[in-house]
This record gives sequence, C-alpha cells and structure tokens, in this order.
Amino acid sequence: MISFTSKDFAQRMERAVAQAAEAGLRGLLVTPGPDLTYFTGYRPTAITERLTMLVLDADHDPRLIVPLLERPDAAESAGAAAVTISAWADGTDPYPAAARLLDPTGRYAISDSAWAMHLLGLQQVLPGASYASMTETMPMLRAVKDADEVDRLAAAAAAADAAYREIIGIRFAGRTERAVGAELAHLLQEHGHSQVDFTVVGSGPNGANPHHEMGDRVIRDGDMVVLDFGGLKDGYGSDTTRTVHVGPPTPVEKEVFEVVRQAQQAAFEAVRPGVPCQEIDRAARRVIDEAGYAERFIHRTGHGIGLTTHEPPYIVEGEKQTLMPGMCFSIEPGIYLPGRFGVRIEDIVTVTDDGGRRLNNTSHDLQIVA
Amino acid sequence: MISFTSKDFAQRMERAVAQAAEAGLRGLLVTPGPDLTYFTGYRPTAITERLTMLVLDADHDPRLIVPLLERPDAAESAGAAAVTISAWADGTDPYPAAARLLDPTGRYAISDSAWAMHLLGLQQVLPGASYASMTETMPMLRAVKDADEVDRLAAAAAAADAAYREIIGIRFAGRTERAVGAELAHLLQEHGHSQVDFTVVGSGPNGANPHHEMGDRVIRDGDMVVLDFGGLKDGYGSDTTRTVHVGPPTPVEKEVFEVVRQAQQAAFEAVRPGVPCQEIDRAARRVIDEAGYAERFIHRTGHGIGLTTHEPPYIVEGEKQTLMPGMCFSIEPGIYLPGRFGVRIEDIVTVTDDGGRRLNNTSHDLQIVA
Repeated sequence: MISFTSKDFAQRMERAVAQAAEAGLRGLLVTPGPDLTYFTGYRPTAITERLTMLVLDADHDPRLIVPLLERPDAAESAGAAAVTISAWADGTDPYPAAARLLDPTGRYAISDSAWAMHLLGLQQVLPGASYASMTETMPMLRAVKDADEVDRLAAAAAAADAAYREIIGIRFAGRTERAVGAELAHLLQEHGHSQVDFTVVGSGPNGANPHHEMGDRVIRDGDMVVLDFGGLKDGYGSDTTRTVHVGPPTPVEKEVFEVVRQAQQAAFEAVRPGVPCQEIDRAARRVIDEAGYAERFIHRTGHGIGLTTHEPPYIVEGEKQTLMPGMCFSIEPGIYLPGRFGVRIEDIVTVTDDGGRRLNNTSHDLQIVA
Repeated sequence: MISFTSKDFAQRMERAVAQAAEAGLRGLLVTPGPDLTYFTGYRPTAITERLTMLVLDADHDPRLIVPLLERPDAAESAGAAAVTISAWADGTDPYPAAARLLDPTGRYAISDSAWAMHLLGLQQVLPGASYASMTETMPMLRAVKDADEVDRLAAAAAAADAAYREIIGIRFAGRTERAVGAELAHLLQEHGHSQVDFTVVGSGPNGANPHHEMGDRVIRDGDMVVLDFGGLKDGYGSDTTRTVHVGPPTPVEKEVFEVVRQAQQAAFEAVRPGVPCQEIDRAARRVIDEAGYAERFIHRTGHGIGLTTHEPPYIVEGEKQTLMPGMCFSIEPGIYLPGRFGVRIEDIVTVTDDGGRRLNNTSHDLQIVA
C-alpha cells in the first residue's frame, strides 16, 4: 500500500478550507485523532492534556501548534511540509499562544474529540470567537473517500472476510465466547490488522445485547452466535458481523434470521447517490417492522467508516444528508430477543456512481457451525 | 488485589460532591475515561460519539445517562448500585435528555477529556449553565490516593523495577532500539502489566529528544541510552526512567549524569506535605541551572499518576497547589544535548505524613550495560 504524500495532505487541507467557507466558518481547529491524521499524517504518541492543534483558514498556510517536546515528532510527519509549526513550552499557558492563530471574532469548527479542557481554554481567552463541532458543521469532512482510501477499506474488509471464513471452520460448542473471540482477534492480526478494536461473540441470550463483547459463557449446541469484529489495517477500519448457529436452527430462529437478512438486503438496495441517509435506515426498519419486530431493532442501521470504525455519515432516522459516491458505511440491522438470542448482519458498503458496492463479500446464508 | 466495592465508589462520589460545593460548583459532569472509572468502575468498551455522562450534585443521588444499547454493560459495573441509570436511543438527541439532569443556571466541572462535541451540545441546549474543566476547578479530584490506591501504584512500580533489573542484563550493543523496546514491553507484561503505554529507548543522539520512542537505530558501544517505560497493572500506572551506558562513559557523560542524579535527589528531598508543587520543580531546576544546563532541561519535572500515567498534580513552575499525603507523582528531571545524548532519571514518589517515599527503588548509579 503506497503512503499518502505531502501533496495528498495539502489537497485535503485546501478542500477543507473551501468547505469551511461554504459552511460560513472562519476555519477549522483540528486536534489529535483521526482528523489530524487525515490532514497531516501526524499521530502523537499519546493524546494528553498538552494542547496540540492544527489551524486551517483561508488567509494563512496551515499552522500547527504543539508542545515543545513533541515538535521533532510533528516535524517528521508526512504532511509537515505543508504546515508551519510553532511550539509552546511546559509552564507557559498554551491557550493565549493558540489564540494568536485565531480570529478573535471568528467561528470555527473543532474536532469532535477535542478535549473539553482545550475548548474551555480557548473560550476563556477568546470570548468573542465561537465554536461548533465538526460533525455538526462539517459532518462530511472525511466522509467521501478518495479511490486510495476505498482501496484501503476494501483491503481491510477482505482481511475481515478471510478471518470469518477461517473462524467458521473451528469448533464452537464447548468453548467459551472468550476463547472464540481470542481466536478471531488472532486471525484478524494474521490477516494484516495492526489493531483489533472489537471481537463480539454473543452466544445464546448474550447475543440479545448488541454491545455484549464476550464472556465466560460456554457456547452450546443450539446457540445462535453473533460475531461482530473489526479493527484497523494500514490505518483504515474493518467492521463486519455474521450470525452463525451451532447445529440446526429452530423454525423461529430461521424466521428471525431471514427477516434480518432481508432487512440488510433492502437497505443495501436502497443505496445510491442522492438518497438521504435516513432512507437507508428506513429501508431496513420497514422490513423488520412489517415482520413484527419493530421494538427489537434497538439501534441505528449503520455508521461511516474510514480512519475510525465509527464516523459520519450515520445511517439513522433524522439524517437527511444525501449519499455521495465514495461514502463508506456499515449496514447492520439486527433483532434482539431478550433472554433468548440476537441476530445481526453487517457489511461495509461504498456508494458508487449508480448504486452501492459491498466491501464484505462472505455469504449471508445462516452458517451452521459445529 | 481486592476490587473496589460499590461502597468505595459511593464514598468517592460523595467526597467529590462536597469538594465541588467548596469550589463554588453546582456539580460534576463525568465522561468515560479515568474519572468515570474512578467513580463507578465503569469502562465502556469504546469512547465514541455517543454521549455517556455521570452527573453528580448535592441534591440528587448520582445519575448516569448512557446510550440505550450500552445500558446492560453500565448496569453491571461495580459502582452501579449507587447510581440511577437512564438511557437515550439512537436517533434521538441526547443533549436535551442530559440537560434535564442539570440546573439550567448551574456551574459544572466537566471531565478534561470529555469530547468538545458533547460540551458544545450541552452549551447549546443550556446556554445559562456554565462549565469549567476538572483540572482547572477540581484539579486534585483524584490526586490524593487512598491506601489501596497507593498499594496498587507501588505494585505497578515494583513490576517496572523488576523489568528494569532484567533488561540491563541483556546485550544492548548491536541491537536496534526497537528490539530492546519490544523486550522491555514483554518484560512489563510478564511482570503483570495488562497494558504497556510507552517504552522509550533513546540511544545516543535520539536520547536528546525526550519524546523519541524508539526507532531502527542500532545501539552502539559508547551510547548513552534513555529507557522510559510504563503502563497499567491492575488498573494503576507505572512510569520510570533510567539512563544506562553501553561500555564506559566519558567524563562529560559522567558529569551530565551526575547533575541529573543530584537534581532528582534534590527534588525528592523537597517533598513533604504543604510544599507547593512548583517548589519541587524549582529544586530540580536549581541544580541543573547551577551546573550550566538550564536551557537543556526542556520539560516540567513531573506529573501525577494513578488511573492514568499523566494527571494532576503537575510538578511545574506556576503550580502553587501544596502537596498532601497520598499524592503520587513522577520526579523526572533531564538534560538533553541535541545531536549528542540525553539523560533522565525518573521515580514515582508518594507524599507521606512527613516527607516522600519512592515507589521505584532501583539504583540511581549510572548502570553500565554490554
């Protein structure tokens, strides 16, 4: 996988400044995390109480303020060539130093995950400036992926698919969720993941809690098992879910599974440029509602994915943003029957010029495992 | 190690509410991360854009608002018994729901690392309320450790010391920094660390960058090597630095090392209840200044440690907070000679009734390695 160049980073910064102007903003304040990685390739060793902030606006070249002792690392980042770096020293107040880079009456978008402490520091020093979250004002900042980014997401999805194809060959009955989860994590790493973010193994009643990770429950014959796993490969995210069954399923289990499968398919078929995100959610929800499980689908249908495994666009009622080619997100409807079992099927999908393309390509049939 | 009980958590919450009142605050807003772990033992699987917030004030029992699908996990946390949990569902706006738990004109301390996005959401819904960072208004919230916490920090320090005693027995010359760092990380894990946060191996000129982690440089005979490593053991942090030398040091190297050793000792000897933090910094800096290296000590002398490896109290000029028994922090002066080498010596120290006690106990002599 080729690395992004300083030219790539410079173009992203230019595009963002133009988008900010369109949104009526003076500029962007970008703090460590995925936004800063996207614009500069710079990932501080740790995200701490020490202020690091990139300021983007139309009147200046990009400026990055960093703690003095992190300056050498910042200067070595791939995007540094396009950025003017200044530093503040321990024992001095970083907020006046940062404020000097800002328009005292400007309105800025700030990274969602910027520390409240830093925002409050800026608000105190520059009471005439105003701030809004990146997701509120520029939600689609990183949402439209370029071709290289889609390639990376496809490679991460292919690795997750390969891990799934292997995990269904192992024995489930008699092993704990934790043991299966550990094997799944190991497989993701074998297939090139540098980081495993989650390996949900929800067996039997545990599958009815969508955020159950894994526990010491021993998986038994007759269990539904939700497998939801992902992480980062070459800096981009994977996230896929398949629900498998230990031995033959009951008619009710088959029916619920089939409803979820159809809901996932309906949502996928609704994907094309110009369609509001909420319509994808509605397409999935309609199938589940009509089958009588409306109350059992207790989360949104999906979320964007890129440098993180959770980002805009959110596929949820109320999100009127329209889909654009290059957007990448999950479609993951589910049905959760408390005390009994859960079913969820999830693929990452990218919007093409005339529809959608799945980046996950393993079968949607109910897989029987041993 | 025994687990903290729901009574421990309830007491911490009560104490914090009393401290907030003394600080002229209506209450505390606590988001996922070390503050929430401290009060409830609850650690969400991931810290995401979905709002989770604990509200502490004098007029109500503690209240926690969580995303609907994380409710089961929150309810299982050790501190949940003392907390009333409410939930918000995907597709609804969490900020009005959270705002109903707040006083519309109250002033609140909010966790430093709360997402700016969440703070802005609250500011929009409750423009009459005001907010300040935990570090600004209640910096010592978690700074005074109880006896069980000091025991955990001492155990983490002892594990880091054990890793150090083993690493100095290996061969350095001819190996890369990365190889030594990997072995150090492995040793920390062998000695019970669940998480390794950093393993700095700064050899020769790389040691002169205090935040250099490790690279592909091959360590050579004649190198100074800064080893700075730590992580979490049973939820509490370790962080220690020793500087070693490959083969016999030069007179200049010995001199610089001795200055740092004396600076660390002077700072340690200044520790006792009632002394302002900045005096500890000054004690170290005085030794280094007098030796003519004032410009080469480019960071603060130390930082608190507990559930995180960086937290108040900060041992830095301008910090007038006085030391109290139970506070735990690093003392880590250093001298950095660009292009040549660096020296740093770091111990974790806890304040006792009449002085300080080192939690790290390996020798401060310049260790010669092979």
